[in-house]
Amino acid sequence: MENFTYHNPTRIVFGKNTIGKLAKLVPADVKVLLLYGGGSIFKNGVHEACRKALEKHTVIEFGGIEANPDYATCMKAVELARREQVGFLLSVGGGSVLDGTKFIAAAIPFKGEPWDILEKNAKISAATPLASVLTLPATGSEANSFSVISRRETRQKLAFGNPLVYPVFSILDPETTYSLDARQTANGVVDAFVHCMEQYMTYPVDAPLQDRQAEAVIQTLIEEGPKVMAHPHDYVVRANIMWACTCALNGSLALGVPQDWATHMIGHELTAFFGIDHARTLAVVLPSLLRQQKAGKQAKLLQFARRIWGITTPDENQAIEEGIQRMEAFFQSLGVPTRLSDHHVKLADALPIAERLGKGPALGERGDITGATIAAILTRAE
Amino acid sequence: MENFTYHNPTRIVFGKNTIGKLAKLVPADVKVLLLYGGGSIFKNGVHEACRKALEKHTVIEFGGIEANPDYATCMKAVELARREQVGFLLSVGGGSVLDGTKFIAAAIPFKGEPWDILEKNAKISAATPLASVLTLPATGSEANSFSVISRRETRQKLAFGNPLVYPVFSILDPETTYSLDARQTANGVVDAFVHCMEQYMTYPVDAPLQDRQAEAVIQTLIEEGPKVMAHPHDYVVRANIMWACTCALNGSLALGVPQDWATHMIGHELTAFFGIDHARTLAVVLPSLLRQQKAGKQAKLLQFARRIWGITTPDENQAIEEGIQRMEAFFQSLGVPTRLSDHHVKLADALPIAERLGKGPALGERGDITGATIAAILTRAE
Repeated sequence: MENFTYHNPTRIVFGKNTIGKLAKLVPADVKVLLLYGGGSIFKNGVHEACRKALEKHTVIEFGGIEANPDYATCMKAVELARREQVGFLLSVGGGSVLDGTKFIAAAIPFKGEPWDILEKNAKISAATPLASVLTLPATGSEANSFSVISRRETRQKLAFGNPLVYPVFSILDPETTYSLDARQTANGVVDAFVHCMEQYMTYPVDAPLQDRQAEAVIQTLIEEGPKVMAHPHDYVVRANIMWACTCALNGSLALGVPQDWATHMIGHELTAFFGIDHARTLAVVLPSLLRQQKAGKQAKLLQFARRIWGITTPDENQAIEEGIQRMEAFFQSLGVPTRLSDHHVKLADALPIAERLGKGPALGERGDITGATIAAILTRAE
Repeated sequence: MENFTYHNPTRIVFGKNTIGKLAKLVPADVKVLLLYGGGSIFKNGVHEACRKALEKHTVIEFGGIEANPDYATCMKAVELARREQVGFLLSVGGGSVLDGTKFIAAAIPFKGEPWDILEKNAKISAATPLASVLTLPATGSEANSFSVISRRETRQKLAFGNPLVYPVFSILDPETTYSLDARQTANGVVDAFVHCMEQYMTYPVDAPLQDRQAEAVIQTLIEEGPKVMAHPHDYVVRANIMWACTCALNGSLALGVPQDWATHMIGHELTAFFGIDHARTLAVVLPSLLRQQKAGKQAKLLQFARRIWGITTPDENQAIEEGIQRMEAFFQSLGVPTRLSDHHVKLADALPIAERLGKGPALGERGDITGATIAAILTRAE
């Protein structure tokens, strides 16, 4: 096991009818900016519940943060927050609204061009405090310090992380997720599944507890995924999915172990280039990445096949391939396709991604995923 | 799944050669009280490493906090801290030193008789900030807000918990545990095992992730326990034991599920009455409690037998009994006995425990463990 530091200060408030707790959780002595996305919170009662809980607070609003939140949109919120001297940001929505809010929180006090936070890893020394009411389980953003922002004009999708943007609290009421459609729900399950894999599917470092903790989340998603598609209004199932998605990326699975975030890096490019849903890019990339990187991930791939899928085939390579196929079949069973061609993307149009990512540092837990490797992964995913 | 709130603000600093980080982690502008136990930290180099890291800090010391920290000892430290206007407490040692430190932290600013914090659940509105360098993995106290204090003059051993006494940080260097003897090491494994069981072994509430997270820790302890007894200087094994003990009681396993802390409550009495090591009381109580409460815990006992021990015996009751026997054999394999008679305690001398606990509220996840039930449990454990 490698050395690590873990400090996750976010207060998780989980369960039915918990939005009312905003009244006490949100500071009363500052102006609050409530941020939201496309307006679904007006249809499912979440906006009303939030405003009712905050009836004694001073609240202004900013809506329209899109999926894969855009830099330009976020900067409009930054201007508003600066002008109105906002002291607290409340994200009400899914991971995109929350990622946008984190960036906005960092950008408000930032001196200079905020895009540098993303592109040049510019140092942040302050951030406006933020919190969330989560309505879409998927990204884990509600319990971590990461954010991913897109810039459509340059086809870029970049991430940053800083302890200053941990949400002060996140309210997770599974009932708010009843109104998600099948596509959003399935995407969330796949996103969380891949988060686990990117912390788990590397090489063994004698960290059996972290392995089992990752397997616990993966197994839960495999069991609960089909249930949530069949019974979207089942509280128990929605609650289990919601908590599994948080546990997949609250940082605990990554402690003391190597990680491989290449699937996300390549996936971000697929979104930036072709507008494919984030989770759907991951479902395309991961199987091909695992096949391409099989030699370096052999031991863990076999463990995945044996423990997660119960595959007993004695031939190790065959067992590994069966494990990957089971994973693909799981994604497909949720309605999430696993090939570029399913998204009508031609390989030739995708290969520039390998060129662009290849100019940066090599990816993967061993730093061996170069531009050429990415090209091979995309080719396998054709 | 039940509603829950989780907020664990402790910063975990885990790994080799991490004690030097005290230099930056401990605030430099206040007087620091370093607390320790019987003096083992002078033999294994931990004291020297701490003082070296704190060479620019103002540090005073208080030693002699005993296993099952005594109220009278703690109050001497409270007097010292008040007199010296200490602003930060640093516990260097195991769970007992840390539990003592938490109580001292709460008692320093407390108006009135600090024993009331334990006996009368008196409200705490402040605590001196505290942190820990952990040298004995077992209690999980390094990552939670609980403390257990004994009062030998009245044969009492009582617990309290308050968010104000979460350690600000805890440094966990597995190398500091090399010098633990076999008894301390085994006790730690058993203590952590039982912590998992008290959060897991109740009745199902459709929380499959929490179940698997508990099973992950239990399974790790079962695998790593024999290894640590055989290879006490193996870094990897010591690291896995240390992290498993923290994960067993950092609060995450209890989220949204019923709990049954009766084993600890009865065990505390066995320590208070007979001076038996804490973990050894648990190894005596838990098997008998599980047999006595089998009807109410049937489903989870069967899951424990099947998933943890791989018992396939079709007869459910037989499988459950085999599971409990495997657990007893595991404790015994570590050198930890499982009967009162192993500790030369006569049933007649133990039964007053049932009388005393019977006067309080009934224990267990269903509140059905009364004085009579405790008498039955002790009788089974004879």
